[in-house]
Amino acid sequence: MKDYPEERKKFIQRATNITAVEHRVSPEMRFEANGHRGAVFWLTGLSGAGKSTLAIETELALFAEGYQVFSLDGDNLRHGLNANLGFSPEDRSENIRRAGEVAALFADAGFVVITAFISPYRVDRDRARKSAGSGFYEVYVKADINVCEARDPKGLYRRARAGEISDFTGISAPYEEPVDCEVTVDTSTLSVQESVEHLLNFVKAELPLNRTA
Amino acid sequence: MKDYPEERKKFIQRATNITAVEHRVSPEMRFEANGHRGAVFWLTGLSGAGKSTLAIETELALFAEGYQVFSLDGDNLRHGLNANLGFSPEDRSENIRRAGEVAALFADAGFVVITAFISPYRVDRDRARKSAGSGFYEVYVKADINVCEARDPKGLYRRARAGEISDFTGISAPYEEPVDCEVTVDTSTLSVQESVEHLLNFVKAELPLNRTA
Repeated sequence: MKDYPEERKKFIQRATNITAVEHRVSPEMRFEANGHRGAVFWLTGLSGAGKSTLAIETELALFAEGYQVFSLDGDNLRHGLNANLGFSPEDRSENIRRAGEVAALFADAGFVVITAFISPYRVDRDRARKSAGSGFYEVYVKADINVCEARDPKGLYRRARAGEISDFTGISAPYEEPVDCEVTVDTSTLSVQESVEHLLNFVKAELPLNRTA
Repeated sequence: MKDYPEERKKFIQRATNITAVEHRVSPEMRFEANGHRGAVFWLTGLSGAGKSTLAIETELALFAEGYQVFSLDGDNLRHGLNANLGFSPEDRSENIRRAGEVAALFADAGFVVITAFISPYRVDRDRARKSAGSGFYEVYVKADINVCEARDPKGLYRRARAGEISDFTGISAPYEEPVDCEVTVDTSTLSVQESVEHLLNFVKAELPLNRTA
């Protein structure tokens, strides 16, 4: 006991009444140590709307302010956890289900998680919300299909129009707009910097950082 | 820029040269902020060997010293991410594959991850090691089958002997002992407290905490 830093001893003392089967580091203890709650900010929107850029820039800004933050996107899940999934409707749904469960685990671990998935179906997003519990915020990264197609950063719209990609969201597969999202970031009218500021201010208002932690 | 705490500004300055597609918070930045690297400590052993107890007690002790730490076990994965998996050989393998990928994500996010899965097959553990990259430590939580069966904390051995559970590791399914694990914790000769000390000292030697971070 005497080896622990003074400000940490309270955690050990508090935890001794918890039964052995439960995790002994509670969300409240992580909250106190990190200075903020864990939560999921779930970005949804068309390909090219700017989800990944918004996620990684907001992650950096939050990290720089002292948050424990991690972004999850197709790139870091499709190469690992979801490497055994394709793009069939069932696999897309399972892709989002797993993403939601992993996001929930990170929130349990005290992280602010920023996810960047098209996640075109309301039912899939609602399931992610349910997995995460109370700390879930749906963020609509909004841009007209015309804007996204004009940007076409990965050349995917061109290939979808040419018939080289089937079931492409917005072209040959539906995108169900959020109806009850917590915040909308309209990237067709806001610059990248303005979009980051908008989301950053929202996160900071919802999860104010207790710097004395 | 001027809104960021002074000691965090270096992170923003350093990150501006990274291309937009990459994650802008690097493992090195997390290392510096947390005072330790991310890594996976993969506990393997028979049912009843004490993996979960060792994991959650070591998690608490590391947390109390100031580490960012999270434990993953069957309980927090089987109810969520792996809820759609049963206990067939294929599903068990997929269970461990996903656990390994999630552990790797947590290590990427800078966490010390302590996993508690029987993970009876070397091939599955080796895959988890490969997913995690360099920061992977296999921990053999060792106890004779007789010791585990005498403990039988969940009554599973009794049910396996009665034929109520098939393919039960150690009874009717194999357990492949580690051949090249980084550390062994023999819970048939060590008390819980001694076992925790043993693992804790190993973690702290491998990932010494830089308290000035």
